[in-house]
Amino acid sequence: MLTLYGDLDSGNVYKVRLLLAQLGIRYRRVDTTQNRGEPGSAAFRKINPIGKIPTLVFDDGRVLSESGAILFYFAAGTPFLPADRWDQANVLRWMFFEQYSHEPYIAVNRHWLLHLPEAERAGLAGRIADNYARGEQALAVMAQHLAGNDWLAAGRYTIADIALYAYTHTAAEGGFDLRRHAAIGAWLARVRAQPSHIPQMRQEEGVPVVQWPG
Amino acid sequence: MLTLYGDLDSGNVYKVRLLLAQLGIRYRRVDTTQNRGEPGSAAFRKINPIGKIPTLVFDDGRVLSESGAILFYFAAGTPFLPADRWDQANVLRWMFFEQYSHEPYIAVNRHWLLHLPEAERAGLAGRIADNYARGEQALAVMAQHLAGNDWLAAGRYTIADIALYAYTHTAAEGGFDLRRHAAIGAWLARVRAQPSHIPQMRQEEGVPVVQWPG
Repeated sequence: MLTLYGDLDSGNVYKVRLLLAQLGIRYRRVDTTQNRGEPGSAAFRKINPIGKIPTLVFDDGRVLSESGAILFYFAAGTPFLPADRWDQANVLRWMFFEQYSHEPYIAVNRHWLLHLPEAERAGLAGRIADNYARGEQALAVMAQHLAGNDWLAAGRYTIADIALYAYTHTAAEGGFDLRRHAAIGAWLARVRAQPSHIPQMRQEEGVPVVQWPG
Repeated sequence: MLTLYGDLDSGNVYKVRLLLAQLGIRYRRVDTTQNRGEPGSAAFRKINPIGKIPTLVFDDGRVLSESGAILFYFAAGTPFLPADRWDQANVLRWMFFEQYSHEPYIAVNRHWLLHLPEAERAGLAGRIADNYARGEQALAVMAQHLAGNDWLAAGRYTIADIALYAYTHTAAEGGFDLRRHAAIGAWLARVRAQPSHIPQMRQEEGVPVVQWPG
């Protein structure tokens, strides 16, 4: 059975869980968490040298990583990734935007606020403030687009929405106030209303879970 | 005519220039540089709210940004992006890896070492050291893969190689010693030997260039 390495806390893993749930694809999950340093371990790097979650292993032993690449692979040929080349480029545009201009600020501040001891966090005050400013800029770009569009790309719910939803819907945990961006709140509600939507922090039924190393 | 906003110094812009050159696609370039803060200006954000280069504007007014999305758009249907779904996912895997685990360390250290006054750089010593460690890890992942493969994905020269070449071939300017990774040096030479390769820092002939705002 398809095996997903990753934990509930990771938004990047959640993207994959959400798409697999909405496509009805069965898999097992090996609970592997950054909070215990597991993805960076030598044992994990034998599976994926990049040392990051999510990592997906297929029945035939093939390995795929990078949430964006995994989303693309499973969405290809489904309504979650329209076939038109311009639409696909725009879906990818938002997915690259997320990994480069959104996640490094919004997800990182969430991680630091949720998981770092206060003393350690104090030493990062400058970087947290810088991340806040850059994260707010990313949210403003999303809000501007969503003020005139129901979805991020291709005029429909796609993996671009899944990719951006993951760390946007928990942005408040990183100190971001989404009430400043009404269009984002309305879009989050539209995403949540999609068929077979699953929440991030509760493991949905039917997915066998074992602890790392599995 | 297709208009590319960006400068010679940006590796992300170079990726697009390199692919367009190899595809023989004509365009003009509006020299727009981060070093003068132009992409973040209000005037530029009217073209692309994300405020980053490269930004591409088509004859009909459509706008595309994010180097990875631009590469995908132009490579689709050409040998630079094989049509197979698994191959495409692996091409994208390396492109997401580049934007998330390579560029933020290797390109940022290059930018700081090339362009920041020494006094300002001294205040960033901790981050430069951290970037160095993470950038070295990214290079090690590439080297491990390239020790057994001529190309990053799909068994051939693709936009994954273009995407990784851009900031890898100038990594020494960011303080990275590529002599530690022989497989990377050999791969850089293979990329340079591809037909219609262009160097980064010299504008190739035949591309009209005007200064921002164009």
